[in-house]
Amino acid sequence: MTDFLADFTGMSESLAKVSDVIHSSIVSQNPIINDALSLLFASNGKMLRPGLLLIASQFGSAEEDKTIHLAAALEMLHAATLIHDDIIDDSPLRRGLPTVQSRYGKKDAVLIGDFLLSRSFLITAEYASPEQALQLAKIVSIICTMEIEQNTNRFCFDRSIRQYFRKIMGKTALLFSLACHVGAHEANVSRSVAETLRRAGYNIGMAFQIIDDILDYSGDETLVRKPLGIDLKSGIITLPLISALRKDTSGKLSELCNIKNIHHADFDGIINMVKNLGGIESAGNHARKFTNRALQEIMKLPSSNSRDLLEQLTNRLLVRSY
Amino acid sequence: MTDFLADFTGMSESLAKVSDVIHSSIVSQNPIINDALSLLFASNGKMLRPGLLLIASQFGSAEEDKTIHLAAALEMLHAATLIHDDIIDDSPLRRGLPTVQSRYGKKDAVLIGDFLLSRSFLITAEYASPEQALQLAKIVSIICTMEIEQNTNRFCFDRSIRQYFRKIMGKTALLFSLACHVGAHEANVSRSVAETLRRAGYNIGMAFQIIDDILDYSGDETLVRKPLGIDLKSGIITLPLISALRKDTSGKLSELCNIKNIHHADFDGIINMVKNLGGIESAGNHARKFTNRALQEIMKLPSSNSRDLLEQLTNRLLVRSY
Repeated sequence: MTDFLADFTGMSESLAKVSDVIHSSIVSQNPIINDALSLLFASNGKMLRPGLLLIASQFGSAEEDKTIHLAAALEMLHAATLIHDDIIDDSPLRRGLPTVQSRYGKKDAVLIGDFLLSRSFLITAEYASPEQALQLAKIVSIICTMEIEQNTNRFCFDRSIRQYFRKIMGKTALLFSLACHVGAHEANVSRSVAETLRRAGYNIGMAFQIIDDILDYSGDETLVRKPLGIDLKSGIITLPLISALRKDTSGKLSELCNIKNIHHADFDGIINMVKNLGGIESAGNHARKFTNRALQEIMKLPSSNSRDLLEQLTNRLLVRSY
Repeated sequence: MTDFLADFTGMSESLAKVSDVIHSSIVSQNPIINDALSLLFASNGKMLRPGLLLIASQFGSAEEDKTIHLAAALEMLHAATLIHDDIIDDSPLRRGLPTVQSRYGKKDAVLIGDFLLSRSFLITAEYASPEQALQLAKIVSIICTMEIEQNTNRFCFDRSIRQYFRKIMGKTALLFSLACHVGAHEANVSRSVAETLRRAGYNIGMAFQIIDDILDYSGDETLVRKPLGIDLKSGIITLPLISALRKDTSGKLSELCNIKNIHHADFDGIINMVKNLGGIESAGNHARKFTNRALQEIMKLPSSNSRDLLEQLTNRLLVRSY
């Protein structure tokens, strides 16, 4: 069970039910799949997407069994994309544990990701409306498109802030926004409340990804539970660097980024200059801007415990250290 | 468009429509996805799964737009599994052209497969009943499980015929049987006709996979359009070898299969002994047995042009050379 949302009133119990559904949905007759996935889901993910779905569903009246299953499907879909991401990035660690690919090899990792994705779609087929299932499939295809684009643009240091925002929207924010919308839809809330929740989810997702990208530069490795600088070293250009490059009047950062041989690149030098040029601070301001937009949307929601919960969560996500 | 089913009366036009749906469903804003997938689908797959769905739908009255879309979704799902298979097998060629992974690299190939799978689920969400969507997702998870099992058992030469049948059922036959069942379901045929079609599809799929595995030993490379012996060289043990090992009273084949170093293994020697021991013939007998079972089921169907078509197709698949 996650520890991130655990101390939010009432969330702990529901998320435990989501975890139960996940654990029973990933059972397979194959021991490798069982080992890989029980380990993955034992390792305390933040469970934000299911959390948002459940909070959104509290704005109306939802059938618990359905929301719990759909929340599980979202987390499984997210985890499937992580397994495949880790293949692409050659990541050794995720949530403080060896990644599926480093433990079972790339070949099995491809298939275990596919298995998990198909089990997620299986739940969706059983519990979601066709419209929601369609939205979910659409978002998976957008996530893939953005990841391919990111892969193509490795070590392209001239990315604009706008290109970055477009990427993180596809990679992260759309799924956050869908989580809120599915929860709202299941609870039969009014169209305007559902749209407000969707926009809140979108802005929370944008802020979340920016903070994630900041943590890759300035996080505490023991809290983040993966090596720092991994994005940069695999050529993924994120907001702290993009912001720092805009302030690099001396051209020194640009020079460091003119990488001819990845094995001789001065990544530590780049990270230090990003910090010195205020790239972290500037990215933080953007995260704050999206958080504020999310809070503005949240304030439009009917006053309730759930609204307070969503507000607390949104604020907490901004100042998180992992 | 496929040339395999093209000369079956009436199939050509419908399959062209399926191809159109596929081509419009794979369009993405990303040039790599577009290039990779248009190339893949330009390369004349056999279109058997869509073909079976369409033939099955002719046993009742089906809405054309729906069956065409579901047929497209099946072919896309199948192609997605091929892209990921080729990553796992390090295959250089598929349908006579470089595989997605050899052209775009393993990383993009993972994502392009995911993209295609999600687009397939997108069509399913829009056009299939929840029950069918669920079945499809279930089959994807079974295909993955079987592929992982196959991966685990590379170079395990003591596979039994029963284990082999179980594997090809999961890898291939279930999707063939679902293709028939979805077509039947869409056409509102009686439960008994639908079940007969499902069983026919299952047996056609079993025979199909056995023939595929035989062609890896004894096919004509220019017709099969991929290098021969690729299964064996990547350690996948199929029926011709399993059958030959059962006839290997001298123990010479077993000895050749005692591979200590894959780079010094005598694969050509194994292939020749499989042929000399009658492994191909014996596997062929199994294929004929499944074909006969399929034909028995087909004979139970109401007499019609569609039944004749299915019979012809089943016979043709047994004697195919590619």
